[in-house]
Amino acid sequence: MALYLIGIGLIDEKDITLRGLELVKKASKAYLESYTSLLQCSKDDLEKLYGKEVILADRDLVEKEADKILDEAASSDVAFLVIGDPMSATTHLDLQTRAIERGVVVEVVHNASVMTAVGVVGLELYKFGKTTSIVFPQEGWDVQSHYDVVKENLARGLHTLCLLDIKVKEPSKDSLKKGADQQFEAARFMTVNQAVESLLSIEKKRGEEVFTDETLCIGCARIGASDMRVKSGTAKELLEMDFGGPLHSLIVPGKLHFMEEEALKRWK
Amino acid sequence: MALYLIGIGLIDEKDITLRGLELVKKASKAYLESYTSLLQCSKDDLEKLYGKEVILADRDLVEKEADKILDEAASSDVAFLVIGDPMSATTHLDLQTRAIERGVVVEVVHNASVMTAVGVVGLELYKFGKTTSIVFPQEGWDVQSHYDVVKENLARGLHTLCLLDIKVKEPSKDSLKKGADQQFEAARFMTVNQAVESLLSIEKKRGEEVFTDETLCIGCARIGASDMRVKSGTAKELLEMDFGGPLHSLIVPGKLHFMEEEALKRWK
Repeated sequence: MALYLIGIGLIDEKDITLRGLELVKKASKAYLESYTSLLQCSKDDLEKLYGKEVILADRDLVEKEADKILDEAASSDVAFLVIGDPMSATTHLDLQTRAIERGVVVEVVHNASVMTAVGVVGLELYKFGKTTSIVFPQEGWDVQSHYDVVKENLARGLHTLCLLDIKVKEPSKDSLKKGADQQFEAARFMTVNQAVESLLSIEKKRGEEVFTDETLCIGCARIGASDMRVKSGTAKELLEMDFGGPLHSLIVPGKLHFMEEEALKRWK
Repeated sequence: MALYLIGIGLIDEKDITLRGLELVKKASKAYLESYTSLLQCSKDDLEKLYGKEVILADRDLVEKEADKILDEAASSDVAFLVIGDPMSATTHLDLQTRAIERGVVVEVVHNASVMTAVGVVGLELYKFGKTTSIVFPQEGWDVQSHYDVVKENLARGLHTLCLLDIKVKEPSKDSLKKGADQQFEAARFMTVNQAVESLLSIEKKRGEEVFTDETLCIGCARIGASDMRVKSGTAKELLEMDFGGPLHSLIVPGKLHFMEEEALKRWK
């Protein structure tokens, strides 16, 4: 009787650990958190490997029906699968805290996260400052926090990893207006190009020379996958590049060590 | 014919991913980097699972004989196993860069790293600033950079993860002096207590009120393992606590969100 928070890694069904697989196999129920990341395999692939049904858990289910999941975990073994590492998103920290408060045993199985896998581009993880996220522009919201994070990190010579927005199963504007049965918009994944645009548009407003056309950036797509694409170049150059399918992320490097400079050459 | 840089996770032989296991099984040779981290299983456990010999690679072998490993990888499949994620230490970045420069195919299999697994204590990874390391005091060296990192992170309200020193197979002072056949000192792993002492001793010299007896800290040992131990308290309190065997790490939290405060209560 426990809640197993199991990271399943970054790419496909083979990225689960032996420990994780053992636990999901013995669990009576398996949920997959499906709104903060994306795998490159299907639900079928996972079910075939695990030998059981995988229930997709969207934001609604996780946030509103957490009590139901915790009830189940109080009387049986429940696996809650998370893409990447289970401890890298607020929702799962919350689920963990609530479980512990209710006396439900929680076991965490860690796995790769983009926050460390990003080291594959050749930058030292030690030299990254605070991570930030970039969200899709929304009417009436003028989010600039990612620009500030880049600015503060650069002032300390640190690299910034920008994680890019994912919109899955968001209610459409029309359905919110009408209060009708909810209609959902198609899933959207922010591209490197859109992330660069976002930073440039804030630069245009603020003019602080933090992120200009000439700023060196590294665009990354599908980190860890065999079709990973990484490109370094100026912001202006990256705007024109095609990184292919999701997930994308953007790095704004700080001061480069010569070994880092050397490593980055391969992405030119 | 490739070099597989394979992360094997944080605890024991079961933390390898299915993808990683597949590759190490098919490799003709398997090295294990054995000087930047520590597993809680034996070399035997790994060999039994992999069905092959595991060659321990100390700093000397990796740094001086990298060419030999790369030669092998140019003509056969070589697995280079790394505890945690393979991209989290400088040495491996360097090996990767050299391999690519020589035209050796490199495949990276990511895994959990303490840098993200640390989220298990209930702090948001988004709110960590630059990571730092704390090294054992050495005669003639007055390292204070970790104090500065904590100071800068705190000024921005950010948490600091301090990774603690590991000394494995270091030549003893006597053998360096005499230029004799090298004698090696016993392995040493820095404890939470020693890390707190290090920061307090710098505070004593500098008096900047960055890290005092009353500073809230979180000491962590064996993150991710079933016998993980996490304790929060003031620096003074942590000095007296016993965290058991290695590896330890220390977190100096910045500004806490109420959800983080809530989560930390369980480590009091």
